[in-house]
Parts: sequence; structure tokens; C-alpha cells
Amino acid sequence: MHNERELIRAIQARAARQGSAAGRLIKLAIGDDCALLRPPRGGELAITTDLTLEGVHFRHDWHPAESVGHRCLARGLSDLASMGARPEAAFLSIALPREFGGRWFNGFLDGWMRLAQAHGVALAGGDTAEAPRGRGGRRGIFAADVVLVGSVPAGKALRRAGARAGDILYVTGALGGAAAELRALAMKSTVNRKRDAEKHPHLYPEPRLKVGARLMRSRLATAAIDLSDGLSTDLTHVCEASNLYAIVEQEALPIAPGATLHEALHGGEDYELLFTARPQAKVPAKLSGVPVHAIGRMLTCVGRRRIPGSADCRIELRVEDGRRTPLPPGGWEHFRKKGKRGSGST
Amino acid sequence: MHNERELIRAIQARAARQGSAAGRLIKLAIGDDCALLRPPRGGELAITTDLTLEGVHFRHDWHPAESVGHRCLARGLSDLASMGARPEAAFLSIALPREFGGRWFNGFLDGWMRLAQAHGVALAGGDTAEAPRGRGGRRGIFAADVVLVGSVPAGKALRRAGARAGDILYVTGALGGAAAELRALAMKSTVNRKRDAEKHPHLYPEPRLKVGARLMRSRLATAAIDLSDGLSTDLTHVCEASNLYAIVEQEALPIAPGATLHEALHGGEDYELLFTARPQAKVPAKLSGVPVHAIGRMLTCVGRRRIPGSADCRIELRVEDGRRTPLPPGGWEHFRKKGKRGSGST
Repeated sequence: MHNERELIRAIQARAARQGSAAGRLIKLAIGDDCALLRPPRGGELAITTDLTLEGVHFRHDWHPAESVGHRCLARGLSDLASMGARPEAAFLSIALPREFGGRWFNGFLDGWMRLAQAHGVALAGGDTAEAPRGRGGRRGIFAADVVLVGSVPAGKALRRAGARAGDILYVTGALGGAAAELRALAMKSTVNRKRDAEKHPHLYPEPRLKVGARLMRSRLATAAIDLSDGLSTDLTHVCEASNLYAIVEQEALPIAPGATLHEALHGGEDYELLFTARPQAKVPAKLSGVPVHAIGRMLTCVGRRRIPGSADCRIELRVEDGRRTPLPPGGWEHFRKKGKRGSGST
Repeated sequence: MHNERELIRAIQARAARQGSAAGRLIKLAIGDDCALLRPPRGGELAITTDLTLEGVHFRHDWHPAESVGHRCLARGLSDLASMGARPEAAFLSIALPREFGGRWFNGFLDGWMRLAQAHGVALAGGDTAEAPRGRGGRRGIFAADVVLVGSVPAGKALRRAGARAGDILYVTGALGGAAAELRALAMKSTVNRKRDAEKHPHLYPEPRLKVGARLMRSRLATAAIDLSDGLSTDLTHVCEASNLYAIVEQEALPIAPGATLHEALHGGEDYELLFTARPQAKVPAKLSGVPVHAIGRMLTCVGRRRIPGSADCRIELRVEDGRRTPLPPGGWEHFRKKGKRGSGST
């Protein structure tokens, strides 16, 4: 299956089997120079691209093929969720090493298609190539770039900018679970890597599309982002985009079972949603079945002294005894020795 | 410049300098979870993705950085041209090896931005990562995935399917020039690699956007494709999509200066347009300043004997003395020993 034509045929066959439920907007899919999409009336299209590289975003010896396929798609779906967009079409470009046989690639497509079907996302196109060998004939590295196209009523997409001073800060689900599972994989502890065995926040994260759609429709949220790089980094993005500061209550954080506080604050890839809402807004305890927790609030920058620590720090963490400690993106100043930086991807 | 944040900033700064002429449909570009596009009324969006891999689509020692940037974008623009779509937005995902310094990446952006400005294409988003090192610490491989979004009036996009028996076959420009220049690069002959020095059909191809738009508006073309994989392969795609055969007149082929007949028939990446029109259609000798040549015609499959040669052969080449010889995709049966197969990318 390493001829490009065969690869494309394998993908086309799987896409065709997905059935007609998917692809509401797609007028022309795989097989011409471009795909054609007819946008809905009064709608905007939300478009996001995510690069997945072997050795950076997954490891061949840790991640089953199904998980790689699932995660490639989940990243883009989570970006759509954070804007309240409905997924419409996906494009998959892959560089496949010759050594990743048909069986691996079928596993990859299994993981992809299962998640795609759950959310009605049709595969509309892409590109394929054999991954080039390294010097000395070393095997090539798997790479995938995934494009997701979603639709959202014009002017209604949730954005990072839009939070106001006084807004309450919420997260869906639990934090740090993905980092905790990754730690277990890294320690080669006996992790059951099969999808159905148990919850797998790292191997098989669930993008919060229903929650995002509900937040968009209800106009509850003033700003939103998905937690792909970790709470400290993604909340900093919201603070920067909205030109605000934030205070997070350590006691209020919903920490995933088995996760540490550090993982909850800085571990990436939970793909939960972080959003803000006006203090008077009635945010239910669950949205579309997913628990929602208030974890802090947004503060104005005006007249406010800079948070001590690093220049880009816009968050303070309030710990149990009322003390506040700076929470810079990707690292925790209070426990600086343990902190790490710049491990995330955007 | 190898921190992801710096990379993104460099790209954003360049995109911002492009000015407001670009990005008619873009409501929100780089800096949120998704870009937002507001599609034109009564329009469809054409979307294409193209993967560019070092060692497969270019060589670091042959191609200047400007050429790599130009070619990454030109491939997608040519796909839009072949459907008659107007380019609206581009997304660039790159895996950059640490060894490709800021200077190389600036050259890449120079090549990209120059072509983008010429065609009013705004950079709306993308993703960045450092290319993972190979085993033994070997440097990573550059990879880019480029997404182009174009607009076209609903139902009016040119497609591969649509040619009818009796239609005349046309190509724009000249054929084989890109393969000839690549041969010169491979032979390390003294090729001036600077963009402005002379014509560079391989290093700096010109996507035929104006011609495509004109063909779409005028309804002259019954089918169209861009010549990315070579005449024999791309014409086979049109034949398959339209369920027809084709005859090509060798004498009518516009062969680029310095190119061989073999390069004109099978050399890829010319990014000219191949299209069909009804025999009574008045196709001018030039479209938007680009010469157009009739090179053959389309024939019905019904009752027609299979062209001898290989099973997937749908084209016959008529040579000077009136003899016909099968022209399978990517290889020339008549000179089988010289022919090569499967070198193209889709």
C-alpha cells in the first residue's frame, strides 16, 4: 500500500463507506483539483490546521495507530468546538514512511473514521506522499496536517478576545488527565491502550463540540479557547487577547483522577474548553452532560501593578491560605524548579 | 528564530505587511483557534491542500529558499486556477529543521509573499513545529502543508469531468520547461537561480489564475485540470473523469525551449492548464496574454477497442507519419526503456 494511488484509494474507500449523513456542505470531494463547499446562508466558515509529527506529537512505540488517527482529528475538532462551530469537512495530508505498512495505516484510518463519524465530519480531500528517508537510509518520519472546516452563524463565533473584567472563568471536564496518562505511557506502566477499555484522556480525547455549540447558541460565553497547551498557557492567550489579568482559585480546580496539580495547571492536550461568562450569567453545573466548574475570574489591567515573576505573566493562583502566587504560561513560578516551559504546541 | 512563538511572530509580521488589499473574505486571521471566512453570496469555496517535503518535492542544495516558498504556494494556486476559482486565503503549516536558520526562513517567506501579493492571497493561519531530528541526531526534514481557499460562483467551477466526445484539447503556455530546468539543476550546470534573472518554469512557475478565471466566466471550457503531474498523467485523469479517450497530435505540442519531447509529454510541474472545449467554440490564440494551443481531441469509449499497451492507457499519440502510439500515464510505451512511472504527486 505504498504507492500513492493505492493510498488515495484506501482513503477514498473508507471515506465513501462513511455514508451520506456526512458532508452536508460538500458539493465535490476527493478526486478533482479542489474540493467544493457550498457555505450555509448567513454562515461563516471556521478553518483550522494542525500539524502532527512523529517524535513531537506522538511516539510510534507509545501510541497505537488508532490513537494517532483519533488525535490528529481531535485537535482540529477541539479548535472548532472552542469557537462554537459545527464540523463540516476535513482534509488530511500525510507523509507516510514506507515501513508503516497497510496494517498501521488501516489502524490510523480506524481511529480517524470512528471519531469523524461520531461528529459527522466528511473527509473532503488532502494530499499523500511517502515520507522521505533520512540520511543513511533511516526510515522517514510520519507527518500529518489536518484541516478542519466548520460552520458558524455569521458574527457568532466564540473568540479569545471578548472577556471583560469581572467575568467568571469556567472549565469543562477535568484537568491534567491527558498529561497523567502520557506520564503513565512514558513510564511504560501497564496502560491498556485499547480505546474501549477505559477512559483515555490522552490517547482518545473527546473534543467538546456539543458544549461549544451550546455556548455559542446560548450566548453565555464572552470568550472561549480550548485547552490544548495547558491551562496556564491557554488562559494567558485569553488574557492577552482580551487585555485582562486572571485569578485562579487552586481549590476550585477540577483535577482529573491520577493527575497532579502541576499537570492540571500546565499539562496540555486535555481538549477541555475554557470560557468566561458575565458574573450574572446562569451557567449550569453541566453543559451537554459535561461538568462545568468556575475556577476564577478576570481582572482589569488598568492601574493594576504587574504580577511579579516574568514579564508575560498575567495570571495569579490563589492557594489555600489565601496567598497568591504568579502563574506564568507553561511554568509555575512558585515551584520554579519543577516548572517547565515551551513544551506546548499551538 | 526556532522558538515556535518567534516563528509565528515572524509570519504574522510579514502577513500584516501585506496590507489590506488581501483578505476580502477574511473576518479573523492568525491569532485565534480558527480563522473565520465569510463566503461571498451565491459562491462556493474551492479548497485544496498540497504537501511539500524536502527530498521529495525539492532539494535543499538545488532550490533556493525563495523558490521553495514560491513553489509551495504556486501548487495550490494552480489547483484553484484549474477550477476557475479566485484565491482568497492561504494556510501554511510548517515543520522547520533547527538548522534552517532565520535567514533561510526569511527567504522562504520572501518567495511566498511575493507570489501571494501578486495574486491577492492573504495568509489566514497555519501551524508551526520544529522538525523532529532523525535517529543519531540527524537534522530534521523540512515539510510544509499549504491550504488554499478560493471562491467561485456556485455551480460554475471547472472540473475534470465534463469533457464530451469530439471536444478539442487545449494547453496554455509551453510544456516540459519545468522538467528541463530541473534537469539542468540536477546536472549542476550553471543555472542562475535568482528569480528575476530569466524565466524559471521549475523554480518560479506562474500559476494560470487569470486564464482559469477567464475560462470559467466565458464558459468556453467543458473540463479543465492543471498540469502538475505531466500531460500524459493529467490528461489521463480528465479521460477517466469524463469516461473518454484522447488523441494527441505530436506536431501540435508547444514544447518549451530546451525541453525534450519526453519532458513535454511526461514532465510534471509546468502548472499550465489543460482544458477541453466544444469543436464549435471560438477559443482565442491567447487567453489573458498566455498562448493557447489545440493539441488533440477527445474520443468516445463506446465500441472503441482498448488502446494496446497497458490497461490504464487512454491516450494515443499521433506521430509525424500518421502512426499512433499508446501514451500511458507517466511513461511512453513506444520508448518504454526511457519511460519512467510514478514520479508525480497529486
